[in-house]
Amino acid sequence: MTNQDPGEYAAQISNYPLLLRLAIDNEVGNLAKVTRSISEHGASVGDIEIQEAQSDVMVRNFRVFCRDEAHAQEIVASVAAIPGVDIQLASDRTFQLHRRGKIEVANKVNIRTMQELSHVYTPGVARVSMQVHDDPDSVWALTTKVNTIAIVTDGTAVLGLGDIGPQGALPVMEGKAMLFKSFGGIDAWPICLDTKDPDEIVNVVKAIAPGFGGILLEDISAPRCFEIEDRLREELDIPVMHDDQHGTAVVVLAGIINALKIVQKRPEDLKMVLVGAGASGTACTKILMNYGVKNVIAYDTRGAIYEGREGLNPAKAWLAENTNKEGFDGTLSEAMVGADLFLGLSAPRMLEPEDVDAMADGAIVFAMANPEPEIMPGLIQGMAQVIATGRSDFPNQVNNVLCFPGLFRGALDAGATDITEEMKIVAARAIASVIPDDQLNEDYILPSVFNGDAGKLVADAVAAEARRSGHVRGPGSARIYI
Amino acid sequence: MTNQDPGEYAAQISNYPLLLRLAIDNEVGNLAKVTRSISEHGASVGDIEIQEAQSDVMVRNFRVFCRDEAHAQEIVASVAAIPGVDIQLASDRTFQLHRRGKIEVANKVNIRTMQELSHVYTPGVARVSMQVHDDPDSVWALTTKVNTIAIVTDGTAVLGLGDIGPQGALPVMEGKAMLFKSFGGIDAWPICLDTKDPDEIVNVVKAIAPGFGGILLEDISAPRCFEIEDRLREELDIPVMHDDQHGTAVVVLAGIINALKIVQKRPEDLKMVLVGAGASGTACTKILMNYGVKNVIAYDTRGAIYEGREGLNPAKAWLAENTNKEGFDGTLSEAMVGADLFLGLSAPRMLEPEDVDAMADGAIVFAMANPEPEIMPGLIQGMAQVIATGRSDFPNQVNNVLCFPGLFRGALDAGATDITEEMKIVAARAIASVIPDDQLNEDYILPSVFNGDAGKLVADAVAAEARRSGHVRGPGSARIYI
Repeated sequence: MTNQDPGEYAAQISNYPLLLRLAIDNEVGNLAKVTRSISEHGASVGDIEIQEAQSDVMVRNFRVFCRDEAHAQEIVASVAAIPGVDIQLASDRTFQLHRRGKIEVANKVNIRTMQELSHVYTPGVARVSMQVHDDPDSVWALTTKVNTIAIVTDGTAVLGLGDIGPQGALPVMEGKAMLFKSFGGIDAWPICLDTKDPDEIVNVVKAIAPGFGGILLEDISAPRCFEIEDRLREELDIPVMHDDQHGTAVVVLAGIINALKIVQKRPEDLKMVLVGAGASGTACTKILMNYGVKNVIAYDTRGAIYEGREGLNPAKAWLAENTNKEGFDGTLSEAMVGADLFLGLSAPRMLEPEDVDAMADGAIVFAMANPEPEIMPGLIQGMAQVIATGRSDFPNQVNNVLCFPGLFRGALDAGATDITEEMKIVAARAIASVIPDDQLNEDYILPSVFNGDAGKLVADAVAAEARRSGHVRGPGSARIYI
Repeated sequence: MTNQDPGEYAAQISNYPLLLRLAIDNEVGNLAKVTRSISEHGASVGDIEIQEAQSDVMVRNFRVFCRDEAHAQEIVASVAAIPGVDIQLASDRTFQLHRRGKIEVANKVNIRTMQELSHVYTPGVARVSMQVHDDPDSVWALTTKVNTIAIVTDGTAVLGLGDIGPQGALPVMEGKAMLFKSFGGIDAWPICLDTKDPDEIVNVVKAIAPGFGGILLEDISAPRCFEIEDRLREELDIPVMHDDQHGTAVVVLAGIINALKIVQKRPEDLKMVLVGAGASGTACTKILMNYGVKNVIAYDTRGAIYEGREGLNPAKAWLAENTNKEGFDGTLSEAMVGADLFLGLSAPRMLEPEDVDAMADGAIVFAMANPEPEIMPGLIQGMAQVIATGRSDFPNQVNNVLCFPGLFRGALDAGATDITEEMKIVAARAIASVIPDDQLNEDYILPSVFNGDAGKLVADAVAAEARRSGHVRGPGSARIYI
């Protein structure tokens, strides 16, 4: 045990509950060895329940309260060392939350009697199906399509983890589906693809599209993601968006709209330096240039991107053609001199404090590498005026949960056929508008994802823009169903 | 109005509630014209509520109680004829139940705070994803895959409606998903495919398989359905089943197991006549022959199927090779003479009462054409001893809801890698066993779909058979998640 304040200690240990399922040989003293070992290593034993009783072995579940992951590992190792004890399961709270998945299907209507069955299934459903067949528009009135998104991934660029495969991606896609439901009231189902071939991904998504009202592409690596999104937007009549590109871009633009108010600069006057020319870096650059930014120098792992550089993929070729008009090919540190805005979507420790110190007055740093930013905010306090990261434990978190649920809510509500660049910009303006001018400050340029206003404001703005620009389905037929 | 008993009248009219949304020009007397017209046509006006008020038009919702669909159509026509009234929506109870679809996605865990978010999504989910990546078996412990089925259709053979397309099929697939949830506790999502090409269907299903624990193929027309099912069973490591074939076959076998007890015959002694050599007819024949039936003559629209007949598709070639050993090529009426069992999966009015009268004593007739059987049960009372149909308004309904939820429940519970022929037979035996011998009679050979025992008995039998035969996943790794 420790000498620290007991309240603090209790709070700490409750931070890391551990579930152990142990098969213990039926021998006097074995159970006591387990509980003693756990206590001796400074953890606390909670409920113990019998899972399964056999003649020579008892399987019991133990709730154990640990301080943190390392402590839990220490406990597991200590228990594993006891003779006659076999660990069947050792799982902490996060794993317990994910057990058997985090989403499920729910029926909106009960099936309790033959009559109820005959309305939702045969024979009643036949009339509904024929209505959809005879009047295809009515699929939007009479089926789940109107509120359903497919979250499509091939598992090649999952979070910062890289190519961990479609099944490795599934826990993340389920999380995304939860966010759609919690923050947008949207029914989304993960579709994890066992192919990395862009042609095949396009074909599969087109094939499954009839049942969905929109497609969110997720965690597909660059540059394939650009081609896949472009082709699906072109070939499908429902909204398609690659979240890693545009979800991030929208929230970055929202943050920069507010940051520019604080530093009192205009987008057309900025010198911007981008590090990370992947999916989101490219999309951020595009949306910011559409918003008015003109002077951009982009870096990838090989240095500055300029017209004429060899071996550029199409997305980087676009950057070469549209940014860095002077063909600057110096180092990142050289480019940072006098810059107004740094945008990092790359890797930890790309910047030195001196680089930020060399920026213009009123410097804005968005260092969004995850989990460790391009430079830690603590190192550049007083050098940059506004600092944003991807993390929730620093001010100004760039979190695309602020964007995609509301954006798709608005698109579905309006019957949108596409997500246009202008719809993304109004979404960014809506997110920025959540913070009233009198509350805006260096540490509060983006609202919390739990701010109840953001989703609704985004949805309304996107729906209005979809209708204004005419990127919506027709009004449909008279909708007489009998 | 009518002179019938008011109670009976109220019961009748409440059978068919109609929702009317009417845009009525703002002119004195227009609303009265509407309500008067409805009353004069014998329907009753319930709640009236304002949906939208404009300066010259009021949009109101009317609940109207009609006797039946024809009556509702009469009401709609009468209202449509009133000048200054525009019908925006006319929808009965079935359509109202289907509005915006019948299923939704639900979160199993709340997201209310940043801490909860950090467990189900980033950064916590990263550890779960890496666990699945490092130990692929853990996808079954840590994701929805363990309880999720894709219901896959191309919309080519939906109910008795034919090729009504993937969106037309969606209301039926949603109904199927509801049945999976209600009767099997399984999370199923509809995948409606915009392709009819068997190669492409196989490729799409293989591509989306990582996120699903099983595949139910549904309403795919013969003979493509045979090839698609065979290839997917071969190439995927999760259970794949075409419900139209095997769901029906399992319930038919269950019914016949019990019918044979009543007529006291053995399967090997039966002469069976099949009409309808499509997906379910072929599957029923296979399962019955696996159960012991030996003497079968099958008919399609061109007559008896025998070895050497021209132009047989692979499924019919199988029938030609394995049934009708004597090469009988007479009429259906000729084949029915002395038959013990008639199985109809074809079309209305294929049989005459004389055909049934010519059968052997203790004749069994399964006339399952939908909605109208091959012969109406009322016409053959006293000729056949046991009569079953696909309808809920006659005794002995063959309803595959008795099979697929429990069958997949058992397969998922056991970690089955396939649905074997033996698993289907134990499922049929389990369904048959729901009815105790002392309750079994000519009008009660199959339990109601609402019989609470059937699903559990089927699931347990299927899971036990999967384990017995070894068609299950390995036990997986030690499942230590920290």
